[in-house]
Amino acid sequence: MQPQPDDPPDHSHPRDPWRTHYAQRAQGMLASEVRALFAVASRPEIVSLAGGMPNIAALPLDDMAALMSDLVARRGTVALQYGAAQGDAGLRESICAVMAREGIADARADDVVVTAGSQQALDLVTRVFIDPGDTVVTEAPTYVTALNTFAAFQARVEHVPLDREGVIPEALAAVLARLRSEGRPPKLFYTVPTFQNPAGVTLSPARRQQVIDICRRAGVLVLEDNPYGLLHFDGEPMRALRADDPDVVYLGSFSKTLAPGLRVGWALAPTAVKDKLVLAAESAVLSPSPLAQMTVETYLRTQPWEDQLKVFREMYRERRDALLDALHQYMSPGIGWNTPGGGFFVWVTLPAGLDAQAMLPRAIGTRVAYVPGTGFYADSNGRHEMRLSYCYPTPDRIREGVRRLAEVIREEITLHEAFGPIPRRTVRGPQAPGPELP
Amino acid sequence: MQPQPDDPPDHSHPRDPWRTHYAQRAQGMLASEVRALFAVASRPEIVSLAGGMPNIAALPLDDMAALMSDLVARRGTVALQYGAAQGDAGLRESICAVMAREGIADARADDVVVTAGSQQALDLVTRVFIDPGDTVVTEAPTYVTALNTFAAFQARVEHVPLDREGVIPEALAAVLARLRSEGRPPKLFYTVPTFQNPAGVTLSPARRQQVIDICRRAGVLVLEDNPYGLLHFDGEPMRALRADDPDVVYLGSFSKTLAPGLRVGWALAPTAVKDKLVLAAESAVLSPSPLAQMTVETYLRTQPWEDQLKVFREMYRERRDALLDALHQYMSPGIGWNTPGGGFFVWVTLPAGLDAQAMLPRAIGTRVAYVPGTGFYADSNGRHEMRLSYCYPTPDRIREGVRRLAEVIREEITLHEAFGPIPRRTVRGPQAPGPELP
Repeated sequence: MQPQPDDPPDHSHPRDPWRTHYAQRAQGMLASEVRALFAVASRPEIVSLAGGMPNIAALPLDDMAALMSDLVARRGTVALQYGAAQGDAGLRESICAVMAREGIADARADDVVVTAGSQQALDLVTRVFIDPGDTVVTEAPTYVTALNTFAAFQARVEHVPLDREGVIPEALAAVLARLRSEGRPPKLFYTVPTFQNPAGVTLSPARRQQVIDICRRAGVLVLEDNPYGLLHFDGEPMRALRADDPDVVYLGSFSKTLAPGLRVGWALAPTAVKDKLVLAAESAVLSPSPLAQMTVETYLRTQPWEDQLKVFREMYRERRDALLDALHQYMSPGIGWNTPGGGFFVWVTLPAGLDAQAMLPRAIGTRVAYVPGTGFYADSNGRHEMRLSYCYPTPDRIREGVRRLAEVIREEITLHEAFGPIPRRTVRGPQAPGPELP
Repeated sequence: MQPQPDDPPDHSHPRDPWRTHYAQRAQGMLASEVRALFAVASRPEIVSLAGGMPNIAALPLDDMAALMSDLVARRGTVALQYGAAQGDAGLRESICAVMAREGIADARADDVVVTAGSQQALDLVTRVFIDPGDTVVTEAPTYVTALNTFAAFQARVEHVPLDREGVIPEALAAVLARLRSEGRPPKLFYTVPTFQNPAGVTLSPARRQQVIDICRRAGVLVLEDNPYGLLHFDGEPMRALRADDPDVVYLGSFSKTLAPGLRVGWALAPTAVKDKLVLAAESAVLSPSPLAQMTVETYLRTQPWEDQLKVFREMYRERRDALLDALHQYMSPGIGWNTPGGGFFVWVTLPAGLDAQAMLPRAIGTRVAYVPGTGFYADSNGRHEMRLSYCYPTPDRIREGVRRLAEVIREEITLHEAFGPIPRRTVRGPQAPGPELP
């Protein structure tokens, strides 16, 4: 018999007295074994090319300390008090100035909602738009925690393939048409168009207007997630999708341009959507931290933040170059990768038949970690793919990590040639490290 | 015809291009006109007895500034980095020591989840347990933003009345039995047992075990929300419900004992529930702010926090006394109130026929604000009730506010005697100020 919610707590299952009480959305909330491996990967002898931690050692910490001390001493009764659910008005003005660097000229501070990192903005947008069974379209591969958020609201995820110029417009149009013909028109197209996580690719300028037009014609809301846009290695920032379509909902973050520990991100949305997001934010967290918001606002107003961005860009470019050089130097033929123009990630494709997930324990034994591709797909794809991050280790460590990884892959190819493919096993639950791991 | 999700954005409704796309849960997300009044109430000439802001001017801000400066300068690469979704291990240990003051002797740091304020803990518990249509039982009246959270997850709320000793056990048993007989056994009983928001009452020791037993027999999870427990005006802290039942899910907060601007709260839950909460937290916000968590952990470890609690308790007791004295001095016969033993709030009952919501604009015109009782009920009750807060204004301002309020009520009684009851109007949306207003 199915347990009923009014059964008394069941101590014959001592590990879970409330197992009969969970919501349907909680059924899929499982931690995978793959995830547990990443805890091991944080040991210092292991070169982790797995995590997505920015290298905030490059920040002037003494200046940040002085800024915060002054803020608390002089404006502590505001900074340490409750704030408004929509966020600090001064910070929302500054955020508009930041977005202007990506071509968003018409943003109004009143249409910005400050959130506890852009992850919360993603959560709030999903909460406001997605009923159980609704369809969300994403790139394939896509940001792993976005998949978790969509799953938490019981969305069905459909993928559109990427190539080296980003999502393929013809494929997007075909997926939207198919879903419409199946009677389940999607509500959202979630995209990381610039320096994508995990694939490192950027939607080309030629494709941007096409993507906007395709979604507009299909009545699909474009949800543009852009945490890496200002970490470009060449020229000027890419023009955001939102710059050319005010109906786009845009998500931004200070986690990569300043510091993730502050947990400050935002959404820019059409006014009526913003109103819903504010009410959803209030029931979710009451308000973002005024202290964190005023820290960011003061930083943007008083510190040379554009110079600091330049420091970050040069540091990450040097690390990307170290990774690419090492891939060229060490990797066997038949292994492919791309050249990201910014951000944190390179996407690596192994020869068909290799299984990056099955290989991970051996890699960790060889003191190198990466994220298997499977975590970035809602379906069973990505087995012979992996994400390599160059954001956190030093260039020397990156080179050593790639050398170790190449060795593991070579052995795997040899094994595969001798014994054929490894039997596949389905893994449930989040399959990438939390961002807190190096 | 019903708009379909695949309709293109509808600019004939220029205020909402995505109005056809919202989730069902977003339909009820409306800001009420009553809410808008509270923005006016924050003007300095108005004595606000409406908000729930703690008086953090009583904190040693220079010490807090020094603490944070040292933290960022010495441990900034950790404090400003991503953290674990469950929260900082050191802080979780400290939280267990804080809970021990309320009789919770068996809490393990591994069963604590740190959240962005206890509001987020409430949101996560609701997310993990509540499917649309599930029933949640609460006290009547109850915390307004809990009602918003339950509404955001499409729960049906059923109330159990309070008296001056807290929720009435016989009434609780009767409601649970009725709901079971109606085929909708509730999943949660949400309670603020100590210095309740909004009613200021405390569940008596004699009733505590009864409430636990009733819920246990009915298979209902007790969700104990306890932000005010350490702000008691006499004797020792009340023993938490969780102290006598490890299956209770307990929510705590540093917003009232330290500072709400840090946004640090927590949940203590049975291990299996905690596992679900951590996964839900990760998809909601990735992690709570390490900076905020390390600030709290350092504060608890290095500052005389128990002395500071005493400062808060004495200050709030003086303000409670000012409020009660003024009520005695100014209020007309037929008006009732209780004497809270701690916390921030007094609940006032007007003579039958008076309408506290209809009276609010006149009160604000007379430069005093309160929260009408209706906001704290999911049904249409509370018309002749109101919440008065004594946490934020000085004792002199409190007395002046009550004097003004008594004058408004006297006029209202005169009008009511002359013209009879005021026609009622239904108000949708949140009907209490956000906590950020004084």
